Amino acid sequence: MSELNVPSQQPSFAPEPSVRRPLRIAIFGFGTVGSSAARILVESQPEGLELTHVFNRGVARKRVDWVPSSVEWSEDAEAVLSSDVDVIVELAGGLEPAGSWVRRALNAGKSVVTANKKLIAYHGIELERLAAAKGGDLKYGAAVAGGIPVIPGLEQGLAGDRIERVEGILNGTCNFMLSKMEEGAEYAAVLATAQARGYAEADPTEDVGGFDARAKLAILMRLALRAEINPEEIVPKPITEISAVDFSYARDLGCTIRQVARGERSGEEIAATVGPMLVAQRSPLAWSRGTENMVVLSGRYGGNVVFSGHGAGGNPTAVAVVSDLLALAHGSRRVDIPSTPGHVGAEFEVPHYIRFRVVDRPGIVAEITGALAKEQINIRAIVQKSGYPQEALPFVVTVEPCKSSALSRALENIRTMDCLLDEPLDLQMLE
Amino acid sequence: MSELNVPSQQPSFAPEPSVRRPLRIAIFGFGTVGSSAARILVESQPEGLELTHVFNRGVARKRVDWVPSSVEWSEDAEAVLSSDVDVIVELAGGLEPAGSWVRRALNAGKSVVTANKKLIAYHGIELERLAAAKGGDLKYGAAVAGGIPVIPGLEQGLAGDRIERVEGILNGTCNFMLSKMEEGAEYAAVLATAQARGYAEADPTEDVGGFDARAKLAILMRLALRAEINPEEIVPKPITEISAVDFSYARDLGCTIRQVARGERSGEEIAATVGPMLVAQRSPLAWSRGTENMVVLSGRYGGNVVFSGHGAGGNPTAVAVVSDLLALAHGSRRVDIPSTPGHVGAEFEVPHYIRFRVVDRPGIVAEITGALAKEQINIRAIVQKSGYPQEALPFVVTVEPCKSSALSRALENIRTMDCLLDEPLDLQMLE
Repeated sequence: MSELNVPSQQPSFAPEPSVRRPLRIAIFGFGTVGSSAARILVESQPEGLELTHVFNRGVARKRVDWVPSSVEWSEDAEAVLSSDVDVIVELAGGLEPAGSWVRRALNAGKSVVTANKKLIAYHGIELERLAAAKGGDLKYGAAVAGGIPVIPGLEQGLAGDRIERVEGILNGTCNFMLSKMEEGAEYAAVLATAQARGYAEADPTEDVGGFDARAKLAILMRLALRAEINPEEIVPKPITEISAVDFSYARDLGCTIRQVARGERSGEEIAATVGPMLVAQRSPLAWSRGTENMVVLSGRYGGNVVFSGHGAGGNPTAVAVVSDLLALAHGSRRVDIPSTPGHVGAEFEVPHYIRFRVVDRPGIVAEITGALAKEQINIRAIVQKSGYPQEALPFVVTVEPCKSSALSRALENIRTMDCLLDEPLDLQMLE
Repeated sequence: MSELNVPSQQPSFAPEPSVRRPLRIAIFGFGTVGSSAARILVESQPEGLELTHVFNRGVARKRVDWVPSSVEWSEDAEAVLSSDVDVIVELAGGLEPAGSWVRRALNAGKSVVTANKKLIAYHGIELERLAAAKGGDLKYGAAVAGGIPVIPGLEQGLAGDRIERVEGILNGTCNFMLSKMEEGAEYAAVLATAQARGYAEADPTEDVGGFDARAKLAILMRLALRAEINPEEIVPKPITEISAVDFSYARDLGCTIRQVARGERSGEEIAATVGPMLVAQRSPLAWSRGTENMVVLSGRYGGNVVFSGHGAGGNPTAVAVVSDLLALAHGSRRVDIPSTPGHVGAEFEVPHYIRFRVVDRPGIVAEITGALAKEQINIRAIVQKSGYPQEALPFVVTVEPCKSSALSRALENIRTMDCLLDEPLDLQMLE
């Protein structure tokens, strides 16, 4: 293998400056991922990469002794941005001020490596154009499924296919919580555990509400389905309404429950959704446990490709960051996958699981099935497990593939029934 | 996203010639993969790629009408190699004449895309050096696990990690056969089925003997473990001795049987092996069914990453080929992962499954366990299922983690026992 610094082995069109001297790297945001990335750079000393700056607010309290003394610690973003660094590693997250830093760096012809899914989901196309126009590069392999090389896989290994569907477990917090609930715990208890372990925030809405997964899905949809969509067009469904009884019913149906993000494209028809779904126990999506992530891509030519591993956490995410830096140092440019603006308009036609909780009385099943029949929805099974009290009886209806809109109309009617104790829980079933 | 042909959106250091006009592509070998690659190029018309030549011996019988008339069909390799094509797509396979074509193309400064695992396993380093010296590029994403982007994943997404172990199901033929045997069939019957479906050759040695998987493992070990090894240092074990009874015992142990290729590195200690092994039913390696492939990479920083999908077949392999071509067209150079020469010297220390077939008589277990004890090998379990005849009784001993060499010495002794009907079958167990 050629050594990075041996010019005779370098092809004539390698990007000269990055080969000649190491890339000078500034890390913006020295939290879990930032310090893991710094540690890999210091420990592994990958050829062609030199950490020169660390920016953080109140940087004094962040300083660590294992970073070489040559590294400049700064709390002045402007000073670092106008220094001679080649690459900004943006790990602060959120739209601002991260977005301004990234734009300033790209405008100055620097390259940017970021793990910021929100920034890329909302502004990725604009930022890529800016990078291309100014001669820098923008890499965000860490933004989706951190340690799993889904983005490089899509850009480099699957660009020759036409991906028609993407399904992913993209939020480790939800996966941790749901795989704990699979073992029998209730929602509130697993949320408390997740918070105690640092997997979930004090306000867990971003994760459990599906907003984090939605941003990641929007990024994957652009690279996989080649559709530029506004993330807000994807309406996420929270996992908060899932209870232990649903896992018990799911098991009887040969399934478990996962937060799944899915997008599908057929011509200009685009469907996308995020939320808890029933997945077959034998399907790849059921393999992911704990905080793991998984992505299944279905290509017209190559069939299904599955990626799985640790999607988040300091070290796995830092691997993606350092890999992006190495790609920059080696002059390995992104393969620009052409994409066009699109809108989420189509609906999935899949079977559904609907769980009701009722005060039992005669005629309930007749009324529910009548409302479904009115919308031409065929019932697959009605399941009622024993052992629950008559005054709060959970039971489940599964239906053959139908559009969500038809089912919503049926549920609108069913909701008026006086015996219902709470909102019926409607979950898509993936087969 | 930037369009390939809009110069204002192209960074200043993109490789000029490949951006300015489409890459002119010659396919060498118009078999299953070659025609699939041509079909994707013709159907999808990826920007920046133009199929200009097809070379095959007796090319007249290969000609198809869906390829544009501008494509030149040739049986003169020299003429195509000295034409103005930019990239040779080598799909002939084998060491020669493929190797000579590839060298000629690289010497002329052209780039090469190949699916030739044997050529890359034996001569990859030399060819990469030649490519780098002459200004071309060599890409072989299709050489290992065809449609699964393991090589781009390693080069682009995991280069920042230090991979310490690689485990893979790299041969679809063996996986098809073993997953059929898992359902109860015997070896001879599934081989016949595999041959009838075109999954196995008339002489299946390359697949069932482990030679195909060994070449792929050697390639993965270079990229993942950064160790350049001679593939012949890996001694493969054939799957031919596995019988239905072994699947039955494996099931009782919570396992199944797969052909696994594994390599491990700890400092300069390198271990590598290919052969049938017991894998836990809950482990990723047991997920692969039919002709699927799977690779599990274990990184120091990122933990386990799993890739799975269709490893072979015309279309999946062609996706990898076209993706490599797109990467070339976009000027996305390989990330050279530094590697150094290494030797397979270390041994795995794993539990083993040993299946004996004996004419039953008193004292057999005592003799066998005595021979194991002499080598300090601890027994984990002795399993004997009912329902087998006393004159050909299969039974299984599992042992705690031990070196293969110690176990071989014990088996040397055991082999002298007169009650043995055939060679004891010794399989590694992966946990």
